[in-house]
Amino acid sequence: MEREIQPGPRRGLLMIHTGDGKGKTTAALGLLFRALGRNFKVIMLQFLKSKKHIYGEHLLAEKLGVEIQPLGDGFSWESKNIETDKSLARECWNTCRNVIESGKYDLVILDELTYPINYGWLPLEDVISVLKKRDSNMHVVITGRNAPQPLMEIADLVSDVHAVKHPLKSGIRAQIGIEM
Amino acid sequence: MEREIQPGPRRGLLMIHTGDGKGKTTAALGLLFRALGRNFKVIMLQFLKSKKHIYGEHLLAEKLGVEIQPLGDGFSWESKNIETDKSLARECWNTCRNVIESGKYDLVILDELTYPINYGWLPLEDVISVLKKRDSNMHVVITGRNAPQPLMEIADLVSDVHAVKHPLKSGIRAQIGIEM
Repeated sequence: MEREIQPGPRRGLLMIHTGDGKGKTTAALGLLFRALGRNFKVIMLQFLKSKKHIYGEHLLAEKLGVEIQPLGDGFSWESKNIETDKSLARECWNTCRNVIESGKYDLVILDELTYPINYGWLPLEDVISVLKKRDSNMHVVITGRNAPQPLMEIADLVSDVHAVKHPLKSGIRAQIGIEM
Repeated sequence: MEREIQPGPRRGLLMIHTGDGKGKTTAALGLLFRALGRNFKVIMLQFLKSKKHIYGEHLLAEKLGVEIQPLGDGFSWESKNIETDKSLARECWNTCRNVIESGKYDLVILDELTYPINYGWLPLEDVISVLKKRDSNMHVVITGRNAPQPLMEIADLVSDVHAVKHPLKSGIRAQIGIEM
Protein backbone atom coordinates (compact mmCIF):
# COMPACT_ATOMS: atom_id res chain seq x y z
CA MET A 1 0.00 0.00 0.00
CA GLU A 2 2.79 2.42 0.82
CA ARG A 3 4.24 4.05 -2.24
CA GLU A 4 7.77 5.34 -2.12
CA ILE A 5 7.53 9.13 -2.02
CA GLN A 6 10.06 10.94 -4.16
CA PRO A 7 10.87 14.37 -2.81
CA GLY A 8 10.49 17.38 -5.08
CA PRO A 9 12.80 20.41 -5.32
CA ARG A 10 12.98 22.43 -2.11
CA ARG A 11 10.31 25.05 -1.83
CA GLY A 12 9.30 26.81 1.36
CA LEU A 13 5.69 26.03 2.23
CA LEU A 14 3.23 28.15 4.17
CA MET A 15 1.11 25.78 6.24
CA ILE A 16 -1.92 26.68 8.37
CA HIS A 17 -3.46 24.50 11.07
CA THR A 18 -6.82 25.96 12.02
CA GLY A 19 -10.20 24.83 13.42
CA ASP A 20 -11.72 24.24 16.87
CA GLY A 21 -10.15 20.83 17.51
CA LYS A 22 -7.12 19.61 19.40
CA GLY A 23 -4.03 18.93 17.34
CA LYS A 24 -3.10 22.25 15.71
CA THR A 25 -0.11 23.11 17.89
CA THR A 26 0.58 19.43 18.41
CA ALA A 27 0.82 18.81 14.66
CA ALA A 28 3.23 21.75 14.44
CA LEU A 29 5.32 20.09 17.16
CA GLY A 30 5.24 16.89 15.10
CA LEU A 31 6.59 18.77 12.08
CA LEU A 32 9.32 20.14 14.30
CA PHE A 33 10.14 16.56 15.34
CA ARG A 34 10.35 15.41 11.71
CA ALA A 35 12.32 18.48 10.61
CA LEU A 36 14.84 17.99 13.43
CA GLY A 37 15.48 14.50 12.06
CA ARG A 38 16.54 16.19 8.82
CA ASN A 39 18.83 18.55 10.74
CA PHE A 40 16.65 21.53 9.94
CA LYS A 41 17.14 24.70 11.93
CA VAL A 42 13.75 25.20 13.57
CA ILE A 43 12.06 27.65 15.90
CA MET A 44 8.59 27.83 17.46
CA LEU A 45 7.34 31.24 18.61
CA GLN A 46 4.30 30.99 20.85
CA PHE A 47 1.84 33.89 21.10
CA LEU A 48 -0.42 32.61 23.87
CA LYS A 49 2.03 30.75 26.10
CA SER A 50 3.89 32.55 28.83
CA LYS A 51 7.24 31.54 30.29
CA LYS A 52 5.54 30.95 33.64
CA HIS A 53 3.88 27.77 32.41
CA ILE A 54 6.19 24.99 31.37
CA TYR A 55 4.82 22.32 29.04
CA GLY A 56 6.36 18.98 28.09
CA GLU A 57 7.55 20.39 24.77
CA HIS A 58 9.58 23.09 26.52
CA LEU A 59 11.32 20.47 28.65
CA LEU A 60 12.34 18.32 25.67
CA ALA A 61 13.24 21.38 23.58
CA GLU A 62 15.61 22.54 26.29
CA LYS A 63 17.28 19.13 26.41
CA LEU A 64 17.68 19.14 22.61
CA GLY A 65 18.76 22.77 22.35
CA VAL A 66 15.69 23.57 20.22
CA GLU A 67 14.15 27.04 20.38
CA ILE A 68 10.53 27.00 21.57
CA GLN A 69 10.00 30.55 22.69
CA PRO A 70 6.89 31.79 24.50
CA LEU A 71 6.30 35.42 23.54
CA GLY A 72 3.65 36.13 26.17
CA ASP A 73 6.10 36.73 28.99
CA GLY A 74 5.25 39.54 31.36
CA PHE A 75 1.76 40.33 30.10
CA SER A 76 -1.51 38.53 30.05
CA TRP A 77 -3.29 39.73 26.89
CA GLU A 78 -5.96 40.92 29.26
CA SER A 79 -5.32 44.63 29.30
CA LYS A 80 -8.41 46.81 29.35
CA ASN A 81 -6.55 49.17 27.03
CA ILE A 82 -6.65 48.26 23.35
CA GLU A 83 -3.62 50.46 22.63
CA THR A 84 -1.55 48.52 25.19
CA ASP A 85 -2.68 45.24 23.60
CA LYS A 86 -1.77 46.51 20.16
CA SER A 87 1.65 47.64 21.25
CA LEU A 88 2.38 44.32 22.97
CA ALA A 89 1.16 42.34 19.96
CA ARG A 90 3.38 44.44 17.72
CA GLU A 91 6.35 43.80 20.00
CA CYS A 92 5.74 40.03 19.71
CA TRP A 93 5.30 40.30 15.97
CA ASN A 94 8.59 42.21 15.67
CA THR A 95 10.32 39.21 17.23
CA CYS A 96 8.66 36.96 14.63
CA ARG A 97 9.55 39.31 11.79
CA ASN A 98 13.20 39.44 12.85
CA VAL A 99 13.30 35.65 12.96
CA ILE A 100 11.73 35.38 9.48
CA GLU A 101 13.86 38.14 7.95
CA SER A 102 17.05 36.65 9.42
CA GLY A 103 16.66 33.85 6.87
CA LYS A 104 18.48 31.58 9.31
CA TYR A 105 15.71 29.02 9.80
CA ASP A 106 14.41 26.16 7.69
CA LEU A 107 11.14 25.96 9.64
CA VAL A 108 9.45 28.75 11.61
CA ILE A 109 6.30 27.97 13.62
CA LEU A 110 4.10 30.93 14.59
CA ASP A 111 1.92 29.27 17.21
CA GLU A 112 -1.52 30.86 17.85
CA LEU A 113 -0.74 33.82 15.58
CA THR A 114 -4.36 33.99 14.41
CA TYR A 115 -5.55 35.35 17.78
CA PRO A 116 -3.78 38.75 17.83
CA ILE A 117 -4.78 39.19 14.18
CA ASN A 118 -8.43 38.35 14.83
CA TYR A 119 -8.55 40.60 17.91
CA GLY A 120 -7.44 43.48 15.71
CA TRP A 121 -4.12 43.92 17.51
CA LEU A 122 -1.97 43.11 14.51
CA PRO A 123 -2.57 44.27 10.92
CA LEU A 124 -3.01 41.25 8.66
CA GLU A 125 -1.37 43.13 5.76
CA ASP A 126 1.90 43.41 7.72
CA VAL A 127 1.89 39.67 8.44
CA ILE A 128 1.16 38.78 4.82
CA SER A 129 3.81 41.19 3.53
CA VAL A 130 6.55 39.65 5.72
CA LEU A 131 5.46 36.10 4.82
CA LYS A 132 5.51 36.86 1.09
CA LYS A 133 9.00 38.35 1.23
CA ARG A 134 10.53 35.48 3.19
CA ASP A 135 13.38 33.29 1.89
CA SER A 136 11.91 31.00 -0.75
CA ASN A 137 13.24 27.92 1.06
CA MET A 138 11.74 28.80 4.44
CA HIS A 139 8.82 26.68 5.66
CA VAL A 140 6.34 28.49 7.93
CA VAL A 141 3.54 26.99 10.03
CA ILE A 142 0.80 29.17 11.51
CA THR A 143 -1.64 27.74 14.05
CA GLY A 144 -4.83 29.03 15.67
CA ARG A 145 -8.60 29.09 15.32
CA ASN A 146 -10.38 31.06 12.61
CA ALA A 147 -7.46 31.65 10.27
CA PRO A 148 -8.29 34.77 8.24
CA GLN A 149 -9.31 34.09 4.64
CA PRO A 150 -6.51 36.19 3.00
CA LEU A 151 -3.94 34.19 4.98
CA MET A 152 -5.47 30.92 3.80
CA GLU A 153 -5.39 32.20 0.24
CA ILE A 154 -1.61 32.59 0.22
CA ALA A 155 -1.05 29.27 2.04
CA ASP A 156 0.12 26.06 0.39
CA LEU A 157 -1.58 23.86 2.97
CA VAL A 158 -4.61 24.44 5.17
CA SER A 159 -5.76 21.74 7.57
CA ASP A 160 -8.91 22.29 9.58
CA VAL A 161 -9.01 20.31 12.83
CA HIS A 162 -12.51 19.69 14.09
CA ALA A 163 -13.26 18.54 17.65
CA VAL A 164 -15.63 15.59 17.33
CA LYS A 165 -15.07 14.59 20.95
CA HIS A 166 -13.00 16.35 23.60
CA PRO A 167 -12.02 14.92 27.01
CA LEU A 168 -12.50 18.24 28.85
CA LYS A 169 -16.16 18.16 27.82
CA SER A 170 -16.51 14.75 29.45
CA GLY A 171 -15.10 16.21 32.65
CA ILE A 172 -11.65 14.63 32.26
CA ARG A 173 -9.05 17.15 33.39
CA ALA A 174 -5.80 17.97 31.60
CA GLN A 175 -3.21 15.20 31.52
CA ILE A 176 0.48 15.89 32.05
CA GLY A 177 2.39 14.70 28.97
CA ILE A 178 -0.72 14.97 26.79
CA GLU A 179 -2.22 18.46 27.14
CA MET A 180 0.79 19.93 28.92
CA MET B 1 -5.52 35.24 27.81
CA GLU B 2 -3.69 32.10 28.82
CA ARG B 3 -5.13 30.49 31.90
CA GLU B 4 -2.93 28.32 34.03
CA ILE B 5 -4.00 24.73 33.42
CA GLN B 6 -4.12 22.55 36.50
CA PRO B 7 -3.54 18.91 35.69
CA GLY B 8 -6.09 16.35 36.82
CA PRO B 9 -5.41 12.88 38.22
CA ARG B 10 -3.69 10.56 35.78
CA ARG B 11 -6.06 8.69 33.53
CA GLY B 12 -5.08 6.93 30.34
CA LEU B 13 -6.83 8.54 27.35
CA LEU B 14 -7.82 6.95 24.07
CA MET B 15 -7.30 9.55 21.35
CA ILE B 16 -8.23 9.25 17.68
CA HIS B 17 -6.94 11.46 14.87
CA THR B 18 -9.03 10.83 11.79
CA GLY B 19 -10.14 12.64 8.60
CA ASP B 20 -8.75 13.24 5.10
CA GLY B 21 -6.35 16.05 6.02
CA LYS B 22 -2.66 16.25 6.75
CA GLY B 23 -1.70 16.32 10.42
CA LYS B 24 -3.01 13.06 11.90
CA THR B 25 0.32 11.24 12.22
CA THR B 26 2.11 14.56 12.66
CA ALA B 27 -0.07 15.47 15.65
CA ALA B 28 0.69 12.04 17.13
CA LEU B 29 4.41 12.82 16.68
CA GLY B 30 3.80 16.11 18.47
CA LEU B 31 2.23 14.27 21.41
CA LEU B 32 5.27 12.02 21.46
CA PHE B 33 7.48 15.14 21.60
CA ARG B 34 5.49 16.58 24.53
CA ALA B 35 5.34 13.23 26.35
CA LEU B 36 9.11 12.76 26.00
CA GLY B 37 9.54 16.09 27.77
CA ARG B 38 7.69 14.52 30.71
CA ASN B 39 9.98 11.46 30.59
CA PHE B 40 7.12 9.24 29.43
CA LYS B 41 7.99 5.87 27.96
CA VAL B 42 6.57 6.10 24.44
CA ILE B 43 6.31 3.93 21.33
CA MET B 44 4.88 4.51 17.87
CA LEU B 45 3.90 1.44 15.83
CA GLN B 46 3.33 2.24 12.16
CA PHE B 47 1.04 0.07 10.06
CA LEU B 48 1.65 1.59 6.64
CA LYS B 49 5.31 2.52 6.80
CA SER B 50 7.99 0.05 5.84
CA LYS B 51 11.56 0.02 7.09
CA LYS B 52 12.75 0.65 3.55
CA HIS B 53 11.62 4.26 3.66
CA ILE B 54 13.24 6.44 6.27
CA TYR B 55 11.42 9.59 7.35
CA GLY B 56 12.71 12.51 9.40
CA GLU B 57 10.95 11.18 12.51
CA HIS B 58 12.86 7.88 12.29
CA LEU B 59 16.17 9.74 12.16
CA LEU B 60 15.45 11.84 15.26
CA ALA B 61 13.89 8.88 17.09
CA GLU B 62 17.06 6.86 16.54
CA LYS B 63 19.18 9.69 17.92
CA LEU B 64 16.93 9.98 20.98
CA GLY B 65 16.55 6.24 21.53
CA VAL B 66 12.79 6.48 20.99
CA GLU B 67 10.93 3.53 19.48
CA ILE B 68 9.20 4.39 16.21
CA GLN B 69 8.67 1.00 14.67
CA PRO B 70 7.38 0.44 11.12
CA LEU B 71 5.39 -2.82 11.06
CA GLY B 72 5.13 -3.08 7.29
CA ASP B 73 8.58 -4.54 6.78
CA GLY B 74 8.86 -7.30 4.20
CA PHE B 75 5.38 -7.01 2.74
CA SER B 76 3.53 -4.42 0.76
CA TRP B 77 -0.15 -4.80 1.77
CA GLU B 78 -0.72 -5.49 -1.90
CA SER B 79 -1.19 -9.21 -1.88
CA LYS B 80 -3.87 -10.53 -4.21
CA ASN B 81 -4.73 -13.03 -1.49
CA ILE B 82 -7.03 -11.77 1.25
CA GLU B 83 -5.96 -14.60 3.58
CA THR B 84 -2.33 -13.51 3.27
CA ASP B 85 -3.33 -9.93 4.02
CA LYS B 86 -5.33 -11.04 7.04
CA SER B 87 -2.50 -13.12 8.39
CA LEU B 88 0.01 -10.27 7.96
CA ALA B 89 -2.34 -7.78 9.56
CA ARG B 90 -2.83 -10.14 12.49
CA GLU B 91 0.93 -10.50 12.88
CA CYS B 92 1.26 -6.69 13.06
CA TRP B 93 -1.61 -6.48 15.50
CA ASN B 94 0.00 -9.13 17.72
CA THR B 95 3.01 -6.84 18.03
CA CYS B 96 0.70 -4.00 19.07
CA ARG B 97 -1.18 -6.21 21.53
CA ASN B 98 2.05 -7.38 23.16
CA VAL B 99 3.16 -3.77 23.54
CA ILE B 100 -0.18 -2.75 25.10
CA GLU B 101 -0.43 -5.81 27.35
CA SER B 102 3.16 -5.34 28.54
CA GLY B 103 1.90 -2.29 30.45
CA LYS B 104 5.40 -0.82 30.07
CA TYR B 105 4.46 2.30 28.15
CA ASP B 106 2.87 5.60 29.12
CA LEU B 107 1.94 6.44 25.52
CA VAL B 108 1.35 3.99 22.66
CA ILE B 109 0.69 5.35 19.16
CA LEU B 110 -0.96 2.98 16.67
CA ASP B 111 -0.31 4.87 13.45
CA GLU B 112 -2.70 4.17 10.53
CA LEU B 113 -4.43 1.35 12.42
CA THR B 114 -7.79 2.24 10.85
CA TYR B 115 -6.71 0.91 7.42
CA PRO B 116 -6.31 -2.82 8.22
CA ILE B 117 -9.57 -2.63 10.20
CA ASN B 118 -11.47 -0.95 7.37
CA TYR B 119 -10.08 -3.39 4.79
CA GLY B 120 -11.52 -6.22 6.86
CA TRP B 121 -8.11 -7.68 7.69
CA LEU B 122 -8.38 -7.14 11.42
CA PRO B 123 -11.49 -7.75 13.57
CA LEU B 124 -12.53 -4.52 15.25
CA GLU B 125 -13.79 -6.46 18.30
CA ASP B 126 -10.27 -7.75 18.99
CA VAL B 127 -8.85 -4.24 18.85
CA ILE B 128 -11.55 -2.82 21.13
CA SER B 129 -11.19 -5.68 23.60
CA VAL B 130 -7.41 -5.15 23.96
CA LEU B 131 -7.86 -1.36 24.28
CA LYS B 132 -10.52 -1.72 26.97
CA LYS B 133 -8.36 -4.07 29.03
CA ARG B 134 -5.25 -1.90 28.92
CA ASP B 135 -3.57 -0.40 31.98
CA SER B 136 -5.76 2.45 33.21
CA ASN B 137 -2.82 4.89 33.07
CA MET B 138 -1.84 4.09 29.47
CA HIS B 139 -2.53 6.75 26.84
CA VAL B 140 -3.21 5.42 23.33
CA VAL B 141 -3.39 7.37 20.07
CA ILE B 142 -4.87 5.83 16.92
CA THR B 143 -4.52 7.58 13.56
CA GLY B 144 -5.98 7.01 10.10
CA ARG B 145 -8.86 7.96 7.85
CA ASN B 146 -12.42 6.79 8.46
CA ALA B 147 -12.10 5.71 12.07
CA PRO B 148 -14.84 3.11 12.70
CA GLN B 149 -17.78 4.40 14.75
CA PRO B 150 -17.47 1.83 17.61
CA LEU B 151 -13.83 2.88 18.07
CA MET B 152 -14.83 6.55 18.25
CA GLU B 153 -17.51 5.64 20.80
CA ILE B 154 -14.97 4.31 23.30
CA ALA B 155 -12.50 7.17 22.65
CA ASP B 156 -11.98 10.13 24.99
CA LEU B 157 -10.87 12.42 22.18
CA VAL B 158 -11.67 12.41 18.47
CA SER B 159 -10.16 15.06 16.20
CA ASP B 160 -11.17 15.14 12.56
CA VAL B 161 -8.56 16.74 10.28
CA HIS B 162 -10.00 18.12 7.08
CA ALA B 163 -7.85 19.05 4.06
CA VAL B 164 -8.96 22.52 3.03
CA LYS B 165 -5.88 22.99 0.83
CA HIS B 166 -3.13 20.50 0.06
CA PRO B 167 0.20 21.29 -1.65
CA LEU B 168 0.24 18.04 -3.67
CA LYS B 169 -2.99 19.15 -5.35
CA SER B 170 -1.27 22.37 -6.44
CA GLY B 171 1.50 20.28 -8.01
CA ILE B 172 4.03 20.93 -5.24
CA ARG B 173 5.94 17.74 -4.59
CA ALA B 174 6.81 16.27 -1.19
CA GLN B 175 9.27 18.27 0.89
CA ILE B 176 12.04 16.62 2.89
CA GLY B 177 11.62 17.55 6.55
CA ILE B 178 7.92 18.32 6.07
CA GLU B 179 6.21 15.32 4.45
CA MET B 180 9.12 12.94 4.98
